[in-house]
Amino acid sequence: MKKDILTVNGRRYRWPSAPVVVVCIDGSEPDYMTAAMAAGAMPWLARALPGGSEMLADCVVPSFTNPNNLSIVTGAPPAVHGICGNFFYDREADAEIMMNDPKYLRAGTILAAFADSDARVAVVTAKDKLRKLLGNKMTGICFSAEKSDETTIAEHGIDNAAKFVGRAVPSVYSADLSEFVFAAGVRLMERDRPDLLYLSTTDYIQHKHAPGTPIANDFYRMMDGYWASLDATGATIVLTADHGMNSKHGADGKPNVLYLQTLLDEWLGKGKARVILPITDPYVVHHGALGSFATAYLPENVDIADVLKRLAARRDVEFALDRKGAAAKFELPEDRIGDIVLVSRRETAIGTSPDRHDLSGLDAPLRSHGGVSEQRVPLYCNRPVEGVAANRRLRNFDAFDIALNHAVAIAAPARAVGQR
Amino acid sequence: MKKDILTVNGRRYRWPSAPVVVVCIDGSEPDYMTAAMAAGAMPWLARALPGGSEMLADCVVPSFTNPNNLSIVTGAPPAVHGICGNFFYDREADAEIMMNDPKYLRAGTILAAFADSDARVAVVTAKDKLRKLLGNKMTGICFSAEKSDETTIAEHGIDNAAKFVGRAVPSVYSADLSEFVFAAGVRLMERDRPDLLYLSTTDYIQHKHAPGTPIANDFYRMMDGYWASLDATGATIVLTADHGMNSKHGADGKPNVLYLQTLLDEWLGKGKARVILPITDPYVVHHGALGSFATAYLPENVDIADVLKRLAARRDVEFALDRKGAAAKFELPEDRIGDIVLVSRRETAIGTSPDRHDLSGLDAPLRSHGGVSEQRVPLYCNRPVEGVAANRRLRNFDAFDIALNHAVAIAAPARAVGQR
Repeated sequence: MKKDILTVNGRRYRWPSAPVVVVCIDGSEPDYMTAAMAAGAMPWLARALPGGSEMLADCVVPSFTNPNNLSIVTGAPPAVHGICGNFFYDREADAEIMMNDPKYLRAGTILAAFADSDARVAVVTAKDKLRKLLGNKMTGICFSAEKSDETTIAEHGIDNAAKFVGRAVPSVYSADLSEFVFAAGVRLMERDRPDLLYLSTTDYIQHKHAPGTPIANDFYRMMDGYWASLDATGATIVLTADHGMNSKHGADGKPNVLYLQTLLDEWLGKGKARVILPITDPYVVHHGALGSFATAYLPENVDIADVLKRLAARRDVEFALDRKGAAAKFELPEDRIGDIVLVSRRETAIGTSPDRHDLSGLDAPLRSHGGVSEQRVPLYCNRPVEGVAANRRLRNFDAFDIALNHAVAIAAPARAVGQR
Repeated sequence: MKKDILTVNGRRYRWPSAPVVVVCIDGSEPDYMTAAMAAGAMPWLARALPGGSEMLADCVVPSFTNPNNLSIVTGAPPAVHGICGNFFYDREADAEIMMNDPKYLRAGTILAAFADSDARVAVVTAKDKLRKLLGNKMTGICFSAEKSDETTIAEHGIDNAAKFVGRAVPSVYSADLSEFVFAAGVRLMERDRPDLLYLSTTDYIQHKHAPGTPIANDFYRMMDGYWASLDATGATIVLTADHGMNSKHGADGKPNVLYLQTLLDEWLGKGKARVILPITDPYVVHHGALGSFATAYLPENVDIADVLKRLAARRDVEFALDRKGAAAKFELPEDRIGDIVLVSRRETAIGTSPDRHDLSGLDAPLRSHGGVSEQRVPLYCNRPVEGVAANRRLRNFDAFDIALNHAVAIAAPARAVGQR
């Protein structure tokens, strides 16, 4: 049943007075939208922001997709929700554990909490890997573009979503996969007018195309058109990103890679350390599992401080931290990271060893993410906001807080205090 | 007379075995060249770097043109050479003092030292504002593209340089101004084969065009052609930049500005503090005197720690430091900065007050520099380098050190130890 205020993971959220749409634009470095607007490719956004709110925020590090999507829907950092990458290493079991199963999620979502109070909630993601996590324990509609022709009422809240949207299922490596998300969002808004709608894209375009380049601008032009349609329904829209994106390649077009397993093998003996790249997932064609964040499990007798000192001295390293330091700095769950955490500088990615990265699918010079260099993301709202302190460090996982608690409803009747 | 080793500002430099060309590409954020190479616009560089050295370095903060050009030619930070901006405030005289007069230069240049030992030295800059500083006490050729039709043997080491180059004097706001620099460099190399040649461009293109966009790629294609010609002479070439460049505007295309004088007027009373924007110079059309660095002189009775605390709490501030802290962190001369130094975050520029910035000349959304966000620059060499420690923090003012002490001469006869 509808409540005035819901508390989720210790934060309070007001019931929406108009539909709320939160969009997570995968890999949307702030320059993508500023450049597209400057090029005239986003006419709706360029009109909407001067009357709304144009903020920037810090995402979660590791600046990867799953940790940040989960932070956005829980309103909390990975230390709370537990998802700090695509997988972690279980030292006792000596196994690398994929974290895309909801059993690894340690916090409830804002989406599920509102749905439990009878809000209409819908979620559309580009790739299926996120769907189960985002829709965990949530009553409502939740499906991915990738598997949209396989949906059922029982599992996804909708039968054959692809047919409902009226589009073919796009390739998982395409801009169409993200366009499908918005087409679905607009159709759902028309049919159901959900109270909360969460749309999450894929960064296929951003991995290949820099801000302001023609194909990037086309992609943002496409999104702008759908957002204009959503805006026309009276929805409060918050646009944010899971992480930014930077080029990490050299003059020869080959990636700049710090091969951490190779390095630790040299220092500590072959195979003594276990390097985990939590960007790794079944869809690595566009980044070759190369990002700017790694964690490693070291043998027991190793002087961790010495290893960290040697890593920190490298020009391509931004942070080399021990487990406690990394967990504190980046708000990560200590039990799901290794003995050390390494963050490379903007222009460098971290790999394990050369033979373990298949770069044959990289048909453009590497652009990737994962580090602090990709932490800055947009936090845009089509409404003015009030009550946001000037000295508050904004996070992308404040998106629902901004939409529900701070966005000023426009063209809605004034409501006296105590009336609701 | 020729020496084996010259010591300048405490650093040792070897006599060149082949001509050395150091190029300072104004505003060359690393992405400009990686994007242009990826687009196939820099065929020479894309071939030269795999056989040479592709490094990145930190420039001097404030990441402005004059401090960095002077650092490159002295091999030292502003704490040593004194030029920490385009002007400083003389509190006793209550006057803002332009620092483009050589009398403010506190260190000799590498160029002058080699010229004193009878090396042939030549310098070509885009704008005239740098010429006198770069050519201070230097025997040889030194002129600007801007005033190339006014040169004399007595003052510039060459009569009517424009006629010698065979090109018309370009507009000070043009890509042609930089092209002239390279055309002159190639002509000088052909005629004189200087031992040291320093070429410094202007960032007119970078202030308007993002990396990878067509006009930026065209500009880098142009430079690539001239560098190929210089390379063909057997020269050792080091390419670096005075600073990077980032967009600092919002959705409406208007600059994101922290108006510091306005803020300090509110806090301390009107006109009590004196804000200095050391980016300000006579050529402000393309940036409106808006960069990410400011310094301010505060009244005597002010609690500086409290002002810094209030500034540091702002979302758009990256560093708020007192004089000693800023001088130590950025290696600046304490007597030429104010009581506080403010560095804004990447997406924000610092202004004084709105009425004091003429933004009418900004015909493209603001891109600018000055902050730590623009500190990362290329340090490329067309030769392999040896003896550069892996943990060394490289600076753009290591350019001559790299060229003279570390670049491995190719296709030159081997020389036995002790033979030179």
